[in-house]
Amino acid sequence: MPELRQDPVTKHWVVVAKERSRRPDDFIHKGKNQAAGGACPFDYGNEALTPPETLAFRPDDLPPNSPDWTVRVVPNKFPAFAPHNDEQIRVSGMYSSRSAYGAHEVVIHGPDHNLSLATYPVEQVKEVLRAYKYRYNYHKSQPYGRYIQIIINHGKEAGASLEHSHSQIFAIPLIPELPKEQLRGAADYYADKGRCVYCDMIAAEIETGSRMIEKTANFAVFVPYAAILPFETWILPITHRPQFEEISEAEYSDLAEILRRTLRRFYYGFEDPPFNMYIHTSPPGYTKLESYHWHMSIIPKFTRIAGFELSTAMWIDVTIPEDAAQFLRSIRL
Amino acid sequence: MPELRQDPVTKHWVVVAKERSRRPDDFIHKGKNQAAGGACPFDYGNEALTPPETLAFRPDDLPPNSPDWTVRVVPNKFPAFAPHNDEQIRVSGMYSSRSAYGAHEVVIHGPDHNLSLATYPVEQVKEVLRAYKYRYNYHKSQPYGRYIQIIINHGKEAGASLEHSHSQIFAIPLIPELPKEQLRGAADYYADKGRCVYCDMIAAEIETGSRMIEKTANFAVFVPYAAILPFETWILPITHRPQFEEISEAEYSDLAEILRRTLRRFYYGFEDPPFNMYIHTSPPGYTKLESYHWHMSIIPKFTRIAGFELSTAMWIDVTIPEDAAQFLRSIRL
Repeated sequence: MPELRQDPVTKHWVVVAKERSRRPDDFIHKGKNQAAGGACPFDYGNEALTPPETLAFRPDDLPPNSPDWTVRVVPNKFPAFAPHNDEQIRVSGMYSSRSAYGAHEVVIHGPDHNLSLATYPVEQVKEVLRAYKYRYNYHKSQPYGRYIQIIINHGKEAGASLEHSHSQIFAIPLIPELPKEQLRGAADYYADKGRCVYCDMIAAEIETGSRMIEKTANFAVFVPYAAILPFETWILPITHRPQFEEISEAEYSDLAEILRRTLRRFYYGFEDPPFNMYIHTSPPGYTKLESYHWHMSIIPKFTRIAGFELSTAMWIDVTIPEDAAQFLRSIRL
Repeated sequence: MPELRQDPVTKHWVVVAKERSRRPDDFIHKGKNQAAGGACPFDYGNEALTPPETLAFRPDDLPPNSPDWTVRVVPNKFPAFAPHNDEQIRVSGMYSSRSAYGAHEVVIHGPDHNLSLATYPVEQVKEVLRAYKYRYNYHKSQPYGRYIQIIINHGKEAGASLEHSHSQIFAIPLIPELPKEQLRGAADYYADKGRCVYCDMIAAEIETGSRMIEKTANFAVFVPYAAILPFETWILPITHRPQFEEISEAEYSDLAEILRRTLRRFYYGFEDPPFNMYIHTSPPGYTKLESYHWHMSIIPKFTRIAGFELSTAMWIDVTIPEDAAQFLRSIRL
């Protein structure tokens, strides 16, 4: 079972994922790790190569784990968090550990091995968002569902171990450091000004314009003022929306469209670059909903996280946010 | 000039390094960025290709920036922090920025293009540590020297842009998040127990043994209990030492020896892997010296920092620390 270990100085929890554990030899020639010529477990017809699905969209009369699905969700074969119903913290001397109790799933974006959210039709992107919502709500109802993180790792440099386009959902028993700091910062801002900091940011960005990429009826897309890495891009609902899972059918359609358009800017601007996407949203049970505002962040993976960032947790962005926005606006879609 | 921008939610500062700025085209085919066949500015005889040195060890009768040096320190040509004596915070609407006032230097480990700290003789490693100490003390005396970070990025995957073995020194006008949390955590532990948390950790590791790699007269080497990445390894002085720059001549010799031995474990165990090294030490002027304990961390760069880590600041270590230590102990030196 994967385990959480607490750093005795900072009190941060680290996942030690024994299921994912690799032997030292695996690290010597990393090229060898690439599954060479093996069947892709996410391809149509290879449903038996994954653990049994937890959700799939397919015609009603077909059985689970059969083909003809549009989007399919399966447990991660090498989970960082797993269900085992053990929340106890174990103390041994100065060290504390607990089970990495939770869930870790894969959302397969579609049956086609060569398409991604940038190149599928928009209806398919909407199906993926619908799968996010269904699984989010499922995990939210589980005892381990204190925090749910949806992410995409696209491309080897962004950490993807399989090239078939997919997302991952982590449902975990605690709120990690960065979301905790964001929630606290946003609550402090609200206590001070009586307004949501993200709402203010959206208004400021629309007014300034230099970091804006696009604006639709429901969503704003811009490069954040203090982007942590080159071309970081945010998508946010323009009106105050604390919870991703509460968005309406109309908003879903608009979000699918704008997410696809944004990913296409990267796809054409940088020739299908590696990227990470993640959704930050109010954790289940969060009460200060007036102060937090869900958003998506897309970060192409062009530079390496190196010694300075590791040792300080401070980011160096080598591209000026205004220049990044100008370039992304200029892509013909 | 490079600039610091503050995230309006978390209040974290990000460096926007205009000097390092790249055009979007630079990211499309990253292979092109590798300087192909150009002269290495860190090689012996190419001293004119770097900015004028700020320190070099060479025979006394030779002029600055001439050959025959053993270790040479030069300003980084594309600095993330630069001296310009402007500490003012500029506020524009909801956003705050300030000059990235400070220094960013390169410590060239030696004149040989093909050697590194693992393969140079131990005397050379000692010279590098001596250069760290000299420059640390210089920056400590400067108005921008609130925090000084020494790091190594070795190999392209670890973020090195030049392959010639070198370290970097960042002297910056604020204490970044991670060191701040470590200092606070260590001070809290001291307030609670009346002991240094690192001293307690060293005693626990020596007693347990399963994560120990080596112990010398002055230093302990082990894989930390909550290692953030596979094979993370710490080197710490066994007796309480809050400040790296205060270590004695005898300790330097021992440190050079143990640092080189540890790097050789990686060099032989993983065939010269990419790695990051950093030193965490009490910042200049820190008063709670009884609670903090300087240490070196070495992290081979085997896995990618991906969507989960970016979105949560929570780490997933896919190698069990006890297994990592066992492997590193087993390397024949």
